[in-house]
Amino acid sequence: MSDRKTGLKWGADEILAFLERDFPQVFRNGQSYAIERLEPKGVSVRLIAGEAQLRPGGTVSGPTMMELVDLAMYMMLLARHGDAARLCVTTNFSISFLRKPPPGDIVVDLELIKHGRALSVGDARVHAAGREMLVAHGECTYHMVSDSATQSR
Amino acid sequence: MSDRKTGLKWGADEILAFLERDFPQVFRNGQSYAIERLEPKGVSVRLIAGEAQLRPGGTVSGPTMMELVDLAMYMMLLARHGDAARLCVTTNFSISFLRKPPPGDIVVDLELIKHGRALSVGDARVHAAGREMLVAHGECTYHMVSDSATQSR
Amino acid sequence: MSDRKTGLKWGADEILAFLERDFPQVFRNGQSYAIERLEPKGVSVRLIAGEAQLRPGGTVSGPTMMELVDLAMYMMLLARHGDAARLCVTTNFSISFLRKPPPGDIVVDLELIKHGRALSVGDARVHAAGREMLVAHGECTYHMVSDSATQSR
Amino acid sequence: MSDRKTGLKWGADEILAFLERDFPQVFRNGQSYAIERLEPKGVSVRLIAGEAQLRPGGTVSGPTMMELVDLAMYMMLLARHGDAARLCVTTNFSISFLRKPPPGDIVVDLELIKHGRALSVGDARVHAAGREMLVAHGECTYHMVSDSATQSR
Repeated sequence: MSDRKTGLKWGADEILAFLERDFPQVFRNGQSYAIERLEPKGVSVRLIAGEAQLRPGGTVSGPTMMELVDLAMYMMLLARHGDAARLCVTTNFSISFLRKPPPGDIVVDLELIKHGRALSVGDARVHAAGREMLVAHGECTYHMVSDSATQSR
Repeated sequence: MSDRKTGLKWGADEILAFLERDFPQVFRNGQSYAIERLEPKGVSVRLIAGEAQLRPGGTVSGPTMMELVDLAMYMMLLARHGDAARLCVTTNFSISFLRKPPPGDIVVDLELIKHGRALSVGDARVHAAGREMLVAHGECTYHMVSDSATQSR
Repeated sequence: MSDRKTGLKWGADEILAFLERDFPQVFRNGQSYAIERLEPKGVSVRLIAGEAQLRPGGTVSGPTMMELVDLAMYMMLLARHGDAARLCVTTNFSISFLRKPPPGDIVVDLELIKHGRALSVGDARVHAAGREMLVAHGECTYHMVSDSATQSR
Repeated sequence: MSDRKTGLKWGADEILAFLERDFPQVFRNGQSYAIERLEPKGVSVRLIAGEAQLRPGGTVSGPTMMELVDLAMYMMLLARHGDAARLCVTTNFSISFLRKPPPGDIVVDLELIKHGRALSVGDARVHAAGREMLVAHGECTYHMVSDSATQSR
């Protein structure tokens, strides 16, 4: 079911339902995710961290932010392609950690800066909920083709 | 206690004991890690995956490989610096996913290609245990200074 | 001479004069650069391409865009630190090429997303002059310390 | 003309002749390149630097190393695909600068770590000629498809 206004195939509820059904391990470590904004060229995802995502001091770990960025890009492509995005795989991923985040929830604002037939690229800015200062900046490239030789979802 | 032969401050047991004591969340999701090789310029770490690290089909997920690469670099610096490496933080991290890994354990061979006073860089090659074919290739830069403004461990 | 209003040590003229005097090779291949915007947290630099920067069809080559991004980050740090930025070196650089640029000038909008004592990070968006669509997206990390073991300017 | 022994479509001479004919700007700034090794999974390319590639002190500049890495990957694909590699474009490029290179020629050893139908990835190690110590480490992803929406050669 596509949304006429936005051109998106799936909304936040459909994306989360798909992940819960097909990728339950995304939630298995105690974290949960809220899609706070979903537009044709961007998505904002909040990580509600569980204990497994925190370092001493209550701040979110680096690998947890990496997973959040990668997941936000996957959600963006699920919104655009619906079930067909099942075939997407991450090909290149880079992130720079800028500052130790304050304790609390983390939000990623992902912008879809390329959406080609084969390759899509997302620019990701990670900040603490309610604060503008970036804690990390990442970029994620996905390959849209069902190429069994490529990885990784 | 430094090893005279290798110039390493800590061996595999000390590294794992430190992580279990100070970063128990590294093991909290059911995975465990075996240090298979530890040399002054390189370390090989095997991920013994639990269910939370697997995708449908029994293969290891992308974020799990990211975490493995980042952890191998941290282990390398713990080996070189012992407790002083507590102050290390990841500053830049990049990874390319090359192929879907076969089901089973995953090993990262990390080579320390720069070990400066301020910055250290590791080149990481990820493959399935017992197989040479790379499934991912990453690079990880750590900052060695106690700069509270920087992230992330 | 520092500008009271902006907190910048150098303006566009001083930056270009420094480069012409100390890094003339930046201009040696026939290109020139115009600083179109200079603020405490960002700079926009236009490349006026010469023949050596073009591919068949009149579009700017990939390596030329890489050089432009790296140079924009250096200009940003020259603006902030003046002559002291002479000691800066690029440590990590990444770029994704999104679309073939149209023929003509290229502009990079660089945002300083971290400005630490040791490390600074710039987020760079490259587009054709007068057009919004991104042709490339890059990130550049500079190390601010006079560490002779590090590279590269 | 394909080489039976190596499975390569083109040898070093054919690659250089193609570049001189179709990409003369690669040599326009006074540099030249020697292909020192060409195998199915790897290539070594030496940059014989001209003045335009040097920084004060006679060392090769960062952007020159970036261009060398990107060019080595293109040469690798020209060797594998011959004229069909004309359609290749760089999609993702990352490099870390590890040490200031000594004055003199620079060599990149590029290894083709993925060679898929759509995407190829090269791992690049840059060192001074005759010396093992790395000065830079890069990675380059090329897209093999004639997708006019993608960049950049």
